Amino acid sequence: MTPRRPERRSEESARAIVQAALELCREVGYAKLSIEGIANRAGVGKNTIYRWWPSKSAVLLDGLLSAVSVQGPFPDTGDVVADFKTQMIAASSILASPDTGPHYAALIGEAQQDPALGSALWDRLVGHLVAAATERIRSAQQQGQIRPELDPEFVVELLYGPTYYRWLIRRHLPDPDHIRMVVDTAFAGIAPSGPAVG
Amino acid sequence: MTPRRPERRSEESARAIVQAALELCREVGYAKLSIEGIANRAGVGKNTIYRWWPSKSAVLLDGLLSAVSVQGPFPDTGDVVADFKTQMIAASSILASPDTGPHYAALIGEAQQDPALGSALWDRLVGHLVAAATERIRSAQQQGQIRPELDPEFVVELLYGPTYYRWLIRRHLPDPDHIRMVVDTAFAGIAPSGPAVG
Repeated sequence: MTPRRPERRSEESARAIVQAALELCREVGYAKLSIEGIANRAGVGKNTIYRWWPSKSAVLLDGLLSAVSVQGPFPDTGDVVADFKTQMIAASSILASPDTGPHYAALIGEAQQDPALGSALWDRLVGHLVAAATERIRSAQQQGQIRPELDPEFVVELLYGPTYYRWLIRRHLPDPDHIRMVVDTAFAGIAPSGPAVG
Repeated sequence: MTPRRPERRSEESARAIVQAALELCREVGYAKLSIEGIANRAGVGKNTIYRWWPSKSAVLLDGLLSAVSVQGPFPDTGDVVADFKTQMIAASSILASPDTGPHYAALIGEAQQDPALGSALWDRLVGHLVAAATERIRSAQQQGQIRPELDPEFVVELLYGPTYYRWLIRRHLPDPDHIRMVVDTAFAGIAPSGPAVG
């Protein structure tokens, strides 16, 4: 038998560690998640984890990134309203799934105390989704479907903010009907249209 | 000299404790805030704190509530767009001030792990603000300034969500120009008006 190459063994350990963090966080919750628990579950020493990650939140972020796709193309059928509904409903499964939602909420919560984690969350997760959305918004602006003077990042805030608010502040899981209504209303406005406006 | 009444001394201790929690959280951050540190700062024993509060987050919530006003009337000049700008800019000072913003962010973060804290935050803080806003929205709907078929709580999400998203996810402090733009755009919609719509 040929011994396995060390780097191969490292990759396997790393995978086992992030998987253990994901599973344990689901089972015991973020507050009770510990490096020791992750090490026991993954069958490695605590030092192995500390060699690669500074904290349990860093391991969990890698776990979350292994479970979600952040690089997919944004739908572009030519109908920007339909495309945002499609993409936002798909992306909201990250928030709604018990395998990823509580982990993501815990990391956003922890990021309020840990600016480095906040930056990592943005650079490695949210920023990719926002970049794809802003690109889609620019193309819709070029086609006259979104007001050209609006900053695409502002449009992202208007479209995605209500769902995050409901989820983080009200603790309501996103639902597709709500998302469709957010998109429709963001496009049309909350003021009555036509001559009824006061 | 007459000895002070025990209940008077309790009130004074309670005030000293919540004040100590506010100050310490500002100085050392929520992660390093401890019941022991609060007790030392307030000049009481740890048991005194545990007799009244279950956790540091519960003390801090009382501290936050002592520092912000949640019961004030919502402006009603008849111009709902102007009134929302006025109220949202005033309320956003809770998020922007170093005396309250980091505390509130920490509590929202902690609430992701602690449903009882999440309920307390809603019942004692956010819910009051939302109730005042929904009442103002209902009156605007009666005056034909907001589409009557929209759920007032949904309108609240649309108006307040973008600021919370920016603050919690982007870590940008709210700014009045951004809030004015959110309100204007929520009312008017992001789609171009007139015959240019695709």
